[in-house]
Amino acid sequence: MEICRKHLFELPDGLIYMDGNSLGPLPRAVPEAVAHVVRGEWGAHLIGGWNADGWMDQPRHVGDLIAPLIGAPAGSVTMGDTLSIKVHQALSAALEMRPDRRLILSDEGNFPTDLYMAQGLIRQLGKGHELRLVPPDAVEAAIDETVAAVMLTQVDYRTGRMHDMARLTRAAQAAGAVTIWDLAHSAGAVPVDVAGCGAEFAIGCTYKYLNGGPGAPAFIHVRPDLADTIRPALAGWLGHAAPFDFDPAYRPAPGVARMRVGTPPVLQMTALQVAMAVWDGVEMGALRDRSVALSERFIAGVEATCPGLTLASPREAAQRGSQVSFRFEHGYAAMQALIARGVVGDFRAPDIMRFGITPLYLDESDVDRAIAVLADVMERRLWDDPVHRRRQAVT
Amino acid sequence: MEICRKHLFELPDGLIYMDGNSLGPLPRAVPEAVAHVVRGEWGAHLIGGWNADGWMDQPRHVGDLIAPLIGAPAGSVTMGDTLSIKVHQALSAALEMRPDRRLILSDEGNFPTDLYMAQGLIRQLGKGHELRLVPPDAVEAAIDETVAAVMLTQVDYRTGRMHDMARLTRAAQAAGAVTIWDLAHSAGAVPVDVAGCGAEFAIGCTYKYLNGGPGAPAFIHVRPDLADTIRPALAGWLGHAAPFDFDPAYRPAPGVARMRVGTPPVLQMTALQVAMAVWDGVEMGALRDRSVALSERFIAGVEATCPGLTLASPREAAQRGSQVSFRFEHGYAAMQALIARGVVGDFRAPDIMRFGITPLYLDESDVDRAIAVLADVMERRLWDDPVHRRRQAVT
Repeated sequence: MEICRKHLFELPDGLIYMDGNSLGPLPRAVPEAVAHVVRGEWGAHLIGGWNADGWMDQPRHVGDLIAPLIGAPAGSVTMGDTLSIKVHQALSAALEMRPDRRLILSDEGNFPTDLYMAQGLIRQLGKGHELRLVPPDAVEAAIDETVAAVMLTQVDYRTGRMHDMARLTRAAQAAGAVTIWDLAHSAGAVPVDVAGCGAEFAIGCTYKYLNGGPGAPAFIHVRPDLADTIRPALAGWLGHAAPFDFDPAYRPAPGVARMRVGTPPVLQMTALQVAMAVWDGVEMGALRDRSVALSERFIAGVEATCPGLTLASPREAAQRGSQVSFRFEHGYAAMQALIARGVVGDFRAPDIMRFGITPLYLDESDVDRAIAVLADVMERRLWDDPVHRRRQAVT
Repeated sequence: MEICRKHLFELPDGLIYMDGNSLGPLPRAVPEAVAHVVRGEWGAHLIGGWNADGWMDQPRHVGDLIAPLIGAPAGSVTMGDTLSIKVHQALSAALEMRPDRRLILSDEGNFPTDLYMAQGLIRQLGKGHELRLVPPDAVEAAIDETVAAVMLTQVDYRTGRMHDMARLTRAAQAAGAVTIWDLAHSAGAVPVDVAGCGAEFAIGCTYKYLNGGPGAPAFIHVRPDLADTIRPALAGWLGHAAPFDFDPAYRPAPGVARMRVGTPPVLQMTALQVAMAVWDGVEMGALRDRSVALSERFIAGVEATCPGLTLASPREAAQRGSQVSFRFEHGYAAMQALIARGVVGDFRAPDIMRFGITPLYLDESDVDRAIAVLADVMERRLWDDPVHRRRQAVT
């Protein structure tokens, strides 16, 4: 089946969108589905929507749509909150599973919110835990029997450098450490096999490669044999075994459902549920092949035409996720110039120009045009224009 | 200005909706605003929406729309997550403010998720904290210098019994305890003056009397003189002083913004923002007068016509929020019969029939019709029909 399915997305005419690793574009089916949940469900059924329209079960249904993309079994993924909250839930549980250890191991390239949430939890617990950050390629050597939890983002948000999940999970397990994988830049981007590698926890957001929309709910997977042993730190009523008994004592729901916390965001959940339909018939291996081919084409084209740019991503495809990054001293201004010309990537301090490779709606002609526009920006030094050099608040 | 503004809501023809204390109805302006954020912002601007459409600042803007309804100063309320998460944030901070105390005081009528979140936090911290529940009218006497935090929901979700916020906050402060008020059934229901009573924390959800839609984001207020001293347990990147510096070390944002955690749910936030426009020109004292008048009318009418029902709410209006509850052994089936006849309230185990009083879209004729239909259900024993007696999963 054809991987490229641009017709399923609303993409502004002429725009080449290479920022799907930050916020995926709008799937065409979403506006009508959201309009329906607003007017046809909330408006028409009011409180009855919780039963009549299946709102209460959406976190499980949507989790089951995401599970196959990350190699997780049905029923092992639930939805809600944000990735930051999921970090707290997974890490809190992991530390409780290893009460005699005090070390949380991560790498220097991890996304800041993962590190911040760990720092917040460490302070909150006040038990002398330590967050140790090592360079990405030093993680394996740093895993030993003092490590309680190995907490990593598989694909680096800046460079696209990809960890070997199976290998690092094996190393963690050999040392008795619990593994938490942040799949924010993996789910829908590269083939993932959480069941195969046996990681205890996997978490991720859904507004990047999964196109769930701004602020779409996060996911959490707990290894099925462990789920019933977790005592959730965030013991919310919708993770209770019988929320509508209104029992004053908390009793966790069976399985991963105990990682639910509060009332689910029905509008966002509906947008995400419908957005997941664009994955029908997509085989992740075939998507990965397309992603690698487009990435290699983009790297070759940029390196041939833009001598000022230095590849920041691993050159080896197997070590890269589904994004390509270049370093350039004036990268911020160059990206602004590029965006002004209809090629949208983004910038990450201090000097990274990022380009998401999303084969569902990018093809060779898009990549070729992006290369040509970038070459033009560089050759004509369009970044050296005050209008592009002004730093904006959010990049 | 007229308080009743039914024309601002989508209400199904002939329906009398007395469940706005559970999920408010759809404000008429919401569908278009949500359609616009989906297609005109996300679809058209993609990643650019974070700046161009002000998504990043929405939690502050919407917080400023809610602040006047709870008597909080501008800039002291922020939005996000769910009420359960806000309980964790406030309670974790409160316990840290009183490191030498171990007692969390609440009442037996508090909403379960508040109690569950406290139980989860206590377990997580493992420092020997205790959650003590006393009858609502015994709270004041139970406050002493061993109490770290007094955590109460102002208006009881079952009975509508309302605590005296000013009085209990004063008592807590005299004993050196920190106060957390859950305003889920207060915001938009009764006049609240968080600044006047000086409570440290106030939290609430926005899908009840504020009509933000299913799963609308929660709010949190931190007393402004304290906000800069809180070290958030849930230290998410959007509560960082400079999220887009991607600094590996957490540094909290000034003020209540540090209580932000992850990426805000833009679709839900937009629905809520537009829903707040129905409050333009509503003076909470005038709304309260209408609420009391409608409640008294409803109580008098039901008591006059339904001898099988026993008032579960306080008879004294000053001790009631904006709902009226009755006890009836067959309350579940009676409520189903009532709903089938176009009068929507809800049921809470074991025997409570709840009716939300929402003067924005309920008037005397609605109340009179609700009384008549309820009287008919009771007189003809319509609850004694198997179709209504089947217990559903969610009530």
